[in-house]
Amino acid sequence: MERVDIAVIGSGPAGVSAAITAKLRGKSLLLFGSKELSDKIGKAHKIQNYPGLPDATGQELRGAFQRHLEAMGITVTEARVNAVYAMGDYFAVQTAGETYEATTVVLATGVVQGKALPGEEEYLGRGVSYCATCDAPLYRGKAVAVIGSSPAAEPEAAYMAEVAGSVLYLPLYEGTPDLPDTVQVVREKPAAVVGEATVTALRTDAGEYPVDGVFLLRDAMAPTQLVPGLEGAGGHVAVNAKMQTNLPGCFACGDAVGLPYQYVKAAGEGNVAALSAVEYLAARKRNEKE
Amino acid sequence: MERVDIAVIGSGPAGVSAAITAKLRGKSLLLFGSKELSDKIGKAHKIQNYPGLPDATGQELRGAFQRHLEAMGITVTEARVNAVYAMGDYFAVQTAGETYEATTVVLATGVVQGKALPGEEEYLGRGVSYCATCDAPLYRGKAVAVIGSSPAAEPEAAYMAEVAGSVLYLPLYEGTPDLPDTVQVVREKPAAVVGEATVTALRTDAGEYPVDGVFLLRDAMAPTQLVPGLEGAGGHVAVNAKMQTNLPGCFACGDAVGLPYQYVKAAGEGNVAALSAVEYLAARKRNEKE
Repeated sequence: MERVDIAVIGSGPAGVSAAITAKLRGKSLLLFGSKELSDKIGKAHKIQNYPGLPDATGQELRGAFQRHLEAMGITVTEARVNAVYAMGDYFAVQTAGETYEATTVVLATGVVQGKALPGEEEYLGRGVSYCATCDAPLYRGKAVAVIGSSPAAEPEAAYMAEVAGSVLYLPLYEGTPDLPDTVQVVREKPAAVVGEATVTALRTDAGEYPVDGVFLLRDAMAPTQLVPGLEGAGGHVAVNAKMQTNLPGCFACGDAVGLPYQYVKAAGEGNVAALSAVEYLAARKRNEKE
Repeated sequence: MERVDIAVIGSGPAGVSAAITAKLRGKSLLLFGSKELSDKIGKAHKIQNYPGLPDATGQELRGAFQRHLEAMGITVTEARVNAVYAMGDYFAVQTAGETYEATTVVLATGVVQGKALPGEEEYLGRGVSYCATCDAPLYRGKAVAVIGSSPAAEPEAAYMAEVAGSVLYLPLYEGTPDLPDTVQVVREKPAAVVGEATVTALRTDAGEYPVDGVFLLRDAMAPTQLVPGLEGAGGHVAVNAKMQTNLPGCFACGDAVGLPYQYVKAAGEGNVAALSAVEYLAARKRNEKE
């Protein structure tokens, strides 16, 4: 697979803005996210302070972003990114389906909504995982529970069913999950991860299920979990005014880097992050020539 | 005159965005600038990376901003701000006509285009001034030259004519200046400020005029000259991620705080600056109650 100049991870206002500016600067890019761009925008009632689009509904703003992407020939790669690895002179972007390569990465992953489950952080890496694709082989023949925030988690649950001994699936959304018969769908609210040295059970509002592993597949993933080695700051990604993170070639923007959670702030930072990535690419090219 | 919560200085994308967010948060405000908002935008051929407004001409983007301000009932106060003084618990915003009061200030003054005149920085405060309203009394009966970047400088040149002994006016724009007969209009290009201990002459591309003072009335003024005590950083205003300056209650955003000079970056920062001002006003209110 061809290595792209810039991988933008997240299709909210920050990611959309970064992709537009990257494209305008003639860079090859991948924009990972959803064709619906952002659930949060789509559900917003009124957005009154995005300058130039007065009194827009969330759907109108989303439509304007979608038309902008179309006008510039930018397509969204609909894949959930499970991990981003700094490989030295490029980044490996791992999705459920395949692994992509990019010289730079712009993280525009938003913020994880809601609190961690009791026991989640305690057992992270000892039975709790955020990535079925990555960790399924560790659970060959074992019992696991998969908690899915949206239908995007279903392909990963289906993949788990091929590997694990048994799979419980707890959807946090309405509608009927599209899953193999071997997956047992449980309509209960997850309450806690229970364990000793490692995970022993998932507790719900209705009971307790003995399992060896709990997979939490949220739409947004904390970037510091997504990118090993990435430095955080108070629950956000640490960046400077140029949106540079501690990892050379890795930039971040939008809600992921801090308050206020505002659309135009995110879009502005996406622009800055993309221009910093362009600058980084140019500096690398100069160094290679020398 | 009533004291407003927030004075926004500058009507480019940063200032427009700050005003919109301030108004949305129910704050009283003054937006100083031009009804044309920004010359720079108006003259821009194409703006392709303001997300949501694909392939806009500068005039289209300006029109969208103007409609947004109108929709929110925000009017522009057309006055050139000559100085902003931190008075302790409020700011005095001095214009040619009058002095306004605001509890907080958002500086969105853009960047000063072009280089300083040779001798300008050397003689600043020793014959060179950026504010006729402020310094005219020092030139009673003396000879001065006024260099005007736009017609907005004419009222100040007219005021100088009431005070000084003689006034030369060098317009840096086309069209006939609307000035009293006592002002001598000189259509030459300023080349240097000449002096010894203080200013003695203004040199142009065509000759040299003996004067005691040279007033440089540019549309954009370096914020650190505008606001005594404001801390700069490499030609820009020093701010943190919340757009706070070193002066409590004074915020800055847009081109004035640094590169890249991009519309959506400026708009994003305007939003953040306004929200920080709102936060500052709330904290003050809490303190007053205690």
